[in-house]
Amino acid sequence: MPVRVAFDHLRVVLVRTRNPLNIGAAARAMSNFGFQHLRVVNPYEAAFREARSAVGASSVLQGAEQVTSTQAAVADCSLVVGTTAVGRRKFRQPVEPLASAAELICKRLRSERVALLFGSEKTGLSNRDLSLCHLLLRIPTREEHGSMNLGQAVAVCLYEITRGGSHPAQPTQRGQPATAGDLDRIHAVLLDALRASGYLKPGASVPTEEKLRRLIRRLHFSSADAGLVLGMLRQILWKLRSGEKHASP
Amino acid sequence: MPVRVAFDHLRVVLVRTRNPLNIGAAARAMSNFGFQHLRVVNPYEAAFREARSAVGASSVLQGAEQVTSTQAAVADCSLVVGTTAVGRRKFRQPVEPLASAAELICKRLRSERVALLFGSEKTGLSNRDLSLCHLLLRIPTREEHGSMNLGQAVAVCLYEITRGGSHPAQPTQRGQPATAGDLDRIHAVLLDALRASGYLKPGASVPTEEKLRRLIRRLHFSSADAGLVLGMLRQILWKLRSGEKHASP
Repeated sequence: MPVRVAFDHLRVVLVRTRNPLNIGAAARAMSNFGFQHLRVVNPYEAAFREARSAVGASSVLQGAEQVTSTQAAVADCSLVVGTTAVGRRKFRQPVEPLASAAELICKRLRSERVALLFGSEKTGLSNRDLSLCHLLLRIPTREEHGSMNLGQAVAVCLYEITRGGSHPAQPTQRGQPATAGDLDRIHAVLLDALRASGYLKPGASVPTEEKLRRLIRRLHFSSADAGLVLGMLRQILWKLRSGEKHASP
Repeated sequence: MPVRVAFDHLRVVLVRTRNPLNIGAAARAMSNFGFQHLRVVNPYEAAFREARSAVGASSVLQGAEQVTSTQAAVADCSLVVGTTAVGRRKFRQPVEPLASAAELICKRLRSERVALLFGSEKTGLSNRDLSLCHLLLRIPTREEHGSMNLGQAVAVCLYEITRGGSHPAQPTQRGQPATAGDLDRIHAVLLDALRASGYLKPGASVPTEEKLRRLIRRLHFSSADAGLVLGMLRQILWKLRSGEKHASP
């Protein structure tokens, strides 16, 4: 999957991140979902150096821009979205759940630059950072369990942005279905095997035969699976019959 | 937001996880999104102890069950879903994108237990683990960027499950579906019967066993049908063995 042109318009902004593992995790999620542009605002200097120099640091991390204010990080973007755990805090901006915020972000990304802001692990975004946002986005989690891990929050937000609306479920492919003839052959051999094993009395009743026929149909065999099952049943029947000969010579 | 009753039916299963931070991250995401039940299969012992004893370890982590096989971890679940990065590997199970797999999971969680499996950071799920799955789930990421971080993958999957999406009408009920334990019992007796009949050589290869395990899962047995089939197979096996005794006295 190539980087989608619209995705090239997103700027992921990490504000005052403390843990280098989180910067690395955010960059990895960006790479996974096809986003290129990371900006870091006043990271703990050592943390950022460490994350960047880690073995296998992605091109996202290598190309990350370091800036000294949130304002500078969002200056070239026309939609600025802050992420928040909400909790008890009151906000002056509209707060949207992730799904609907992502829909708006997708729409704007087609022609504009959008910044998506993540605050520090301890304190989130400051009131000053928040004042730069057009909109706040909330990942719907259980409030009493506090905020998400930063790397996980980035992954979930980017996943929702790439998700791009509804994806109707595709039916599961199991190959060509078995024909009624295939099923009848299974039914016949199964009946014989069940008689030979003593599970069914020699003159099994019609209701029992029909019960087994319905069972076989409930299993929705593919043509290939019906062939496989028929082969097994035939071998089992052959063996049962050869055993019978020994049993009553 | 209280734990939703349906969510109580999900078992998150981490198979052979190596990094304690990842076990902790998975548990935190579970807690964030309202899931309680974590099972760990053969984690690196030290890693698991470390994660569990971490300051602020959640109740999810404290209550995690440790088991010694994937089979045991999914035995009481009637839908088993494996997660995969896909990449170059070919799979024999249906692979669904996360959005549609989550829709199915949500539907089944209303009345049944569902297991969601995550493999080790290095190698993912083994072929044996995969053969226990009814369905594989793929998070749509860019293939060239390899697999996601484990904690992030757990967060994204659980987010999508809680997201809800649209719930189309439920298909016709065929009764409670069979549990993984029911299917294992069918598998074991079928293998014995196939060996006794000469269909399989005494030391059947692992790929053959896995092929049969996948076949059984493709048939989507109801619990009642699984009981019926098991009864038949047991009788057939008993008869095959009594025939053997006569054949070679």
